[in-house]
Amino acid sequence: MDVTEFTPTREQYAWTFGGVEPVRTVRPGSVLRLWSDDAFGGTLSSPDHVSSERVDLAHVNPQTGPFFVEGAEPGDTLALHVVDLQPARDWGASAVMPFFGGLTSTDRTAFLQDPLADTTWIYALDRAARTVTFDARFSDLQVALPLEPMLGTVGVAPPSGEVRTALVPDSFGGNMDTPEMKAGATLYLRVNVPGALFSIGDGHYRQGEGEACGTAVEGAMDSTLIVDLVKAGDAPAPAWPRLEDDEHWSVIGSSRPLEDAWRIAQRELVVWFTELYGLHRLDAYQLLSQITRAPIANVVDANFSAVVQAPKGLLPAAQAYGGLHRHLRSLAATL
Amino acid sequence: MDVTEFTPTREQYAWTFGGVEPVRTVRPGSVLRLWSDDAFGGTLSSPDHVSSERVDLAHVNPQTGPFFVEGAEPGDTLALHVVDLQPARDWGASAVMPFFGGLTSTDRTAFLQDPLADTTWIYALDRAARTVTFDARFSDLQVALPLEPMLGTVGVAPPSGEVRTALVPDSFGGNMDTPEMKAGATLYLRVNVPGALFSIGDGHYRQGEGEACGTAVEGAMDSTLIVDLVKAGDAPAPAWPRLEDDEHWSVIGSSRPLEDAWRIAQRELVVWFTELYGLHRLDAYQLLSQITRAPIANVVDANFSAVVQAPKGLLPAAQAYGGLHRHLRSLAATL
Amino acid sequence: MDVTEFTPTREQYAWTFGGVEPVRTVRPGSVLRLWSDDAFGGTLSSPDHVSSERVDLAHVNPQTGPFFVEGAEPGDTLALHVVDLQPARDWGASAVMPFFGGLTSTDRTAFLQDPLADTTWIYALDRAARTVTFDARFSDLQVALPLEPMLGTVGVAPPSGEVRTALVPDSFGGNMDTPEMKAGATLYLRVNVPGALFSIGDGHYRQGEGEACGTAVEGAMDSTLIVDLVKAGDAPAPAWPRLEDDEHWSVIGSSRPLEDAWRIAQRELVVWFTELYGLHRLDAYQLLSQITRAPIANVVDANFSAVVQAPKGLLPAAQAYGGLHRHLRSLAATL
Amino acid sequence: MDVTEFTPTREQYAWTFGGVEPVRTVRPGSVLRLWSDDAFGGTLSSPDHVSSERVDLAHVNPQTGPFFVEGAEPGDTLALHVVDLQPARDWGASAVMPFFGGLTSTDRTAFLQDPLADTTWIYALDRAARTVTFDARFSDLQVALPLEPMLGTVGVAPPSGEVRTALVPDSFGGNMDTPEMKAGATLYLRVNVPGALFSIGDGHYRQGEGEACGTAVEGAMDSTLIVDLVKAGDAPAPAWPRLEDDEHWSVIGSSRPLEDAWRIAQRELVVWFTELYGLHRLDAYQLLSQITRAPIANVVDANFSAVVQAPKGLLPAAQAYGGLHRHLRSLAATL
Repeated sequence: MDVTEFTPTREQYAWTFGGVEPVRTVRPGSVLRLWSDDAFGGTLSSPDHVSSERVDLAHVNPQTGPFFVEGAEPGDTLALHVVDLQPARDWGASAVMPFFGGLTSTDRTAFLQDPLADTTWIYALDRAARTVTFDARFSDLQVALPLEPMLGTVGVAPPSGEVRTALVPDSFGGNMDTPEMKAGATLYLRVNVPGALFSIGDGHYRQGEGEACGTAVEGAMDSTLIVDLVKAGDAPAPAWPRLEDDEHWSVIGSSRPLEDAWRIAQRELVVWFTELYGLHRLDAYQLLSQITRAPIANVVDANFSAVVQAPKGLLPAAQAYGGLHRHLRSLAATL
Repeated sequence: MDVTEFTPTREQYAWTFGGVEPVRTVRPGSVLRLWSDDAFGGTLSSPDHVSSERVDLAHVNPQTGPFFVEGAEPGDTLALHVVDLQPARDWGASAVMPFFGGLTSTDRTAFLQDPLADTTWIYALDRAARTVTFDARFSDLQVALPLEPMLGTVGVAPPSGEVRTALVPDSFGGNMDTPEMKAGATLYLRVNVPGALFSIGDGHYRQGEGEACGTAVEGAMDSTLIVDLVKAGDAPAPAWPRLEDDEHWSVIGSSRPLEDAWRIAQRELVVWFTELYGLHRLDAYQLLSQITRAPIANVVDANFSAVVQAPKGLLPAAQAYGGLHRHLRSLAATL
Repeated sequence: MDVTEFTPTREQYAWTFGGVEPVRTVRPGSVLRLWSDDAFGGTLSSPDHVSSERVDLAHVNPQTGPFFVEGAEPGDTLALHVVDLQPARDWGASAVMPFFGGLTSTDRTAFLQDPLADTTWIYALDRAARTVTFDARFSDLQVALPLEPMLGTVGVAPPSGEVRTALVPDSFGGNMDTPEMKAGATLYLRVNVPGALFSIGDGHYRQGEGEACGTAVEGAMDSTLIVDLVKAGDAPAPAWPRLEDDEHWSVIGSSRPLEDAWRIAQRELVVWFTELYGLHRLDAYQLLSQITRAPIANVVDANFSAVVQAPKGLLPAAQAYGGLHRHLRSLAATL
Repeated sequence: MDVTEFTPTREQYAWTFGGVEPVRTVRPGSVLRLWSDDAFGGTLSSPDHVSSERVDLAHVNPQTGPFFVEGAEPGDTLALHVVDLQPARDWGASAVMPFFGGLTSTDRTAFLQDPLADTTWIYALDRAARTVTFDARFSDLQVALPLEPMLGTVGVAPPSGEVRTALVPDSFGGNMDTPEMKAGATLYLRVNVPGALFSIGDGHYRQGEGEACGTAVEGAMDSTLIVDLVKAGDAPAPAWPRLEDDEHWSVIGSSRPLEDAWRIAQRELVVWFTELYGLHRLDAYQLLSQITRAPIANVVDANFSAVVQAPKGLLPAAQAYGGLHRHLRSLAATL
């Protein structure tokens, strides 16, 4: 297989989906080994660093990419299989930032109260134990937590000529911030522009569902991906990001209010089930009502994200996109 | 232990939290063996039955209760431990009802579109296999799904003299519709009136997170509970329903929009962590941001419900309410 | 005409809609002259008074009533015509209360930030000039504002056996907090229980749309009303509060999020226009899209309220409820 | 004064804010006379035309512009004074489009119901009477409505390198769809990129507040504007669009849910009042709570918009941006 390795220089960081020239062209079926910086661009490396002095909210989530996928045309489906995610630094950072996060007023939910105290936590990585350690700042507790690497941000260029900040998730993917975006998962995204122009970033060494304080254990990441393409003639492109792993069929919806994010995901999974099982949409609606998991992804970005998942283990076997996920799992096993 | 057995007559069904005379008085530490009817009062027993002809939305979720708990005073904490839940019928029912559910306009999200087709699905129970079977109505699929019994509705009389329909969840519990309300769980609720006046109902043989179509596999239920009480002097009462099982510390928030339900739950879990671990609230906020699960409960009731959970397995040991949950688990094992 | 005068003793204050015995029985077509206390029960009478010491959120908006209307049955329409509203004290009070209001986190939009400073403003009334005067607390400005008396809270007992706090607006009316509820307006409410059991309270000497800080210029009020009744056989009862004055056909929707309150009001006005003008609902939807006013009522209560209004001046003449509003206006002119 | 006249060719239509080369450079203080096409690009000119056959939602609201303002730098404030708006055609069009509008499910509030019937209404303009006439499609009513021309869409290039569709309002202005954007109003917008790059479009011959069905009486428009600039050193730029006319100080907030749009507007008006009157923010919060009007703008776009207004007539005289609005009114009077 073709292998593309890429580590951006700081000048090559991309801050948006769309509006950026591709850094490389890749072929469907090829492998990418990518380095991405953390959400803060590495600026928070000590508990003494505060975000208000070091982080510019217009420049967070630096993206590695975009990559031009040969042959990708609007209406096709891009498949990104996450083979492996490994921390690229020995520490991760998390912060409570002024007027950013889930339990504070923000520029969108705009109140008159004072901000929470601008605070940074540094998590030390233990590679052998595969843990990151929470170290309380104002009280007395240390807890080693399992490393569970994931990518906060994966997306393609948006439709309608838009260019969107890497902070906002939407139908093109982006900053969905779900722990489901981990090794073993295949993400399906509608291609909106020639070449798809996908990028990744915002690695998390671990994250709770909801990403409550607004930041995960943010860390530079070494990612191994396989990219593939399903042509429009072979399958309709999904309206919203679909995610397949060995255990679940999932959809990620992003909007506000949060119920709209959930509605998008639940409805798109109904649509997917009419495709996978030939079900009438009311039967799909009914069946999914009894089996879905619905883990919240983030309640902190400009759009909130919700995941709706159907467990494969409860269902008859089915194939999406010609069994592409299993194919990519097999390929990944050879790397 | 004292054991109270109770099966309501149809005239004894309660439709509200508050506003109903108690059916029995029970002592803290005693056992209840209760029968409850399904959400539809048993009226939908065939796929030929349609909700618009048989279900009155002002009379759904018939409650078994309320029970007056001796010694319970406002400010105390009521503990309800679910020992066992067993289907009381050989079938469950689910329905897509006009203008009710998660993927349809409703009386609250009021649009001009026509309703979805009024449709009922009957799920046959296989007690030996412990499954309920989905049988598609408009297409061709049968799927046997594991029985996972839970209670949709558990609550106490509300504060401020209110009487609230059994359809609406709020700080007093009620129709939270979360699969986490299952055998092995202990629910902690603030007592708002003398005697607490709790009731249960709306048994589900299983339910997906979100309860997308508005109804689970609704079924009459035989429930075994242990009731207990924590006096105000021993611990502050929780502002919102807290749930403890062997794996998680959880809070259930209910409001609209859905992000407010999540905010309530996430914030109350922060408060709980300041109590459990002596953490500063910003440290609790940070730690929980990296470890919480956030499964949506329902997006269909007059208030939506979201659950936020912290896995005990990631954390140092801690005790809530003097270790009451472990105590109740031990008692339950003797039954 | 029959005239009922009533000033409640403090023990007679009602705090809920539903759940309270009627204080008087009145006949349709009769006049009521009522005194109501302010939202704080008169406890904030000096800028030195702070709400956290004097106001119990479980006891605000004391209601005068409820009144049992002879012959009122569920499904009928209660008409309440506001003849006159006059301040009953020489001052009004307003407060920024901790965790209450539109630009602060609350128990529903639950954040971790500190509350705003608990602050009270007293507005002096000038009866001759018909003004109330804003007097800045932390800066230097005095502004005399026109007296525009209105009732924050008007409602009937809810359906489904519910009892609801006088803080929350819903389909039964209640704490809608709209400046449109002023002299000259006729409110139409669905009767849910025998006798309707309406009450009023929460007088405002004036209020901005949205009631941003959570409290208006709160003041005790002398209200003159005419009560009337439309039997179910003569007209279908409105699903949500309808308001008619000489200038507008209006509906008040109450829910969360705010768009749902608006949707309710806009949709119910579409329904009303199919009744008033025999319009197809899509034509009513279209016409109203071009002519409605949509002043926000409150963004601070447990449900938010939005008003949608169609200006009579743009439309052909039409009659609701047999021309009842005009009839009541004529009667009012004789008082 | 400099006068720039510009009518775009169809190839020059802009569909986004940002991402488009300027069509002209203009000097602060100069006049623009602009023609803009209607939201549908003129494709709906008969009631027999249906939007699903003729309207591409990725190409609506064609913009006239953008214009590069000499000397405009990020952090400056752009002032756009609307001198005059005149219909450029003898008819306007409005449509109920599938899955678009305020009383229907959409791609964001995603349900499973069928769409409303795709329907177009054509409004004939009577220039002498200055009316547009509603003509019912499915029932029998004709109503001549006063012409009240306004611009649905006015904005500048967004910050952070974004390019945003002309369908979505945000802090950069855009598709705010408020009737307040009419002749006599001055809009203040933060400049985000060199030259500001503002554009206008989406003329409405009239529109109700909320724009309920998703479309106003859409019409091509001849607009006369004066553009001006306030340098960053002279005044801080507004975080959100501010609007001044002879009667009101206004702010337009755009977000979801609708309460967040309102919160943004209400809060920004508090900030503006601290600037205009030297008020403490709590005093501004209090005063505005008693005097604001809060007309909803739109509940149909990807972000909803709410306007919050303070009536100048209730307040002491004050000047924003050195009295720029009055100056522009004077200039306009000389045209």
